[in-house]
Amino acid sequence: MFQELLQQAIKGDHKSIARCISLIENEVPGFEALFSTMNTEKSAPVVGITGPPGAGKSTLVDQLIGSYVNEGKKVAVICIDPSSPFNFGALLGDRIRMSEWYNHPSVFIRSLASRGSLGGLHPMVIEITDFIRMCNVDVVIVETVGVGQSEVEIAGLADATVLVLVPEGGDEIQFMKAGLMEAASVFVVNKSDREGADRFTILLKSMLHSSGRFADDGSNNVVNTVASTGEGIEALRECISNVLVENTSIEKRIPLLARRAYRLIEKRRMADINIQLLVEELTDLVKQQKFNLYQFINKYK
Amino acid sequence: MFQELLQQAIKGDHKSIARCISLIENEVPGFEALFSTMNTEKSAPVVGITGPPGAGKSTLVDQLIGSYVNEGKKVAVICIDPSSPFNFGALLGDRIRMSEWYNHPSVFIRSLASRGSLGGLHPMVIEITDFIRMCNVDVVIVETVGVGQSEVEIAGLADATVLVLVPEGGDEIQFMKAGLMEAASVFVVNKSDREGADRFTILLKSMLHSSGRFADDGSNNVVNTVASTGEGIEALRECISNVLVENTSIEKRIPLLARRAYRLIEKRRMADINIQLLVEELTDLVKQQKFNLYQFINKYK
Repeated sequence: MFQELLQQAIKGDHKSIARCISLIENEVPGFEALFSTMNTEKSAPVVGITGPPGAGKSTLVDQLIGSYVNEGKKVAVICIDPSSPFNFGALLGDRIRMSEWYNHPSVFIRSLASRGSLGGLHPMVIEITDFIRMCNVDVVIVETVGVGQSEVEIAGLADATVLVLVPEGGDEIQFMKAGLMEAASVFVVNKSDREGADRFTILLKSMLHSSGRFADDGSNNVVNTVASTGEGIEALRECISNVLVENTSIEKRIPLLARRAYRLIEKRRMADINIQLLVEELTDLVKQQKFNLYQFINKYK
Repeated sequence: MFQELLQQAIKGDHKSIARCISLIENEVPGFEALFSTMNTEKSAPVVGITGPPGAGKSTLVDQLIGSYVNEGKKVAVICIDPSSPFNFGALLGDRIRMSEWYNHPSVFIRSLASRGSLGGLHPMVIEITDFIRMCNVDVVIVETVGVGQSEVEIAGLADATVLVLVPEGGDEIQFMKAGLMEAASVFVVNKSDREGADRFTILLKSMLHSSGRFADDGSNNVVNTVASTGEGIEALRECISNVLVENTSIEKRIPLLARRAYRLIEKRRMADINIQLLVEELTDLVKQQKFNLYQFINKYK
């Protein structure tokens, strides 16, 4: 039954894709064997979009979807929701804005919550992304809100990562996201009609230049947009395409594949740890005043 | 020899502490057995200080050290340097400012770089912190720059975490660090003499209130400071003390200990993975066009 469903999903049937994802999410036996037979290398590229809430990221994704769809492309979007009580307002807004695409035949949208009391990404996000890439789509967009470790991680796992910034907060904002800035390869200055946008853009370009990360001065990797009006969207798409082409070289792909492999191995090796059980055992020992952290972890060799 | 050195370190001898840390850093055989015999539970509290560069975090740490030293306390400081090309300027400034304490007999300072092409914390940071706590100090301050996943992680591992913010960027800044905001229990509005500080403080308090994280409305966990003049430092110390006292309850300590245990287990289980080797193997397969991610990770079961 899984094989049949799979065949439909690979053809691009949205219902089947959604069901397969649920099977992967719930780690239904057999889903792993599936990946071993699939060629993840010859599939749609993954574009990560990240940045702080309020940067207009979702409006930008909205416009990007429109731009791809208008060219007859098929788009899959994965939204990673941080499970933070501080973000509900912003996220709700995002979801409402994005909803116009929910029922479009060329667009598949799925939200994944970041899970686990220990933080981090949804445990199956790499597998789910790899799966969707193979389902007859032209591009997969993964949107994360720049709030912590998850977005840096996912940025490291996408084929091209777009960091959306806004010209405000003076010259400090870019420092704040340095972890992200290293993972990103496309830098969007959104709301570029705002005062101070020129100065911000110049500053950003000079930072990228001095970072020495790019073969040229990096200014080709900076795009000015006004997402609310659609200004700059085509330039952004071109920039993303260029990065994707560059990143098909072995030198660029190897670190990406290595990171993916490492994360998957890590997850697999930690899969037997039942956190609730660990907490219970630990609580007992602490209550008996017999707890020593380094003795305790020896149980989990 | 390690035992002798250890005895000196536990008495608080700075040279011996520094040497022991080097042994731990280099994972010299025998260092692990050491921890199993030590009582990490009856040792100095760990205070994490984090926030974006430019928030005045280091000046604040500087003032905190002074405040502890004036009361005859012994302080250890660990600085986690992100290995980001974007931060050299800011960090250099930090280090210079902090240096006045480098040779003070009551103050021990050590810098640790975050390592590894795959990101994340210095691999031995939990062990090193646990070690310093036992070396006859009254408090351990761990300073991280809020740039990515490391600082959220370390925040989750400290007994009390202080998030340093500045009143700027309007009402968006707090959203940016939501991951951190959940990990933090003390919120500093530094540079409180700036315009907009009152509005910012009110907004922050109302966010903490509506988060429902605190038994009261959370306003007692917000401190206004002007680090450059020392204003608010005593209030900050009191706030930190209160949080540390609260966090000695079993309910508060269990999640913290569980996170520490989990990270240590994770690190140990991944220790056999030679990343360079993994990359080489992977490169060969990619070049031969024989690479399948999910087949590849089966080698590392």
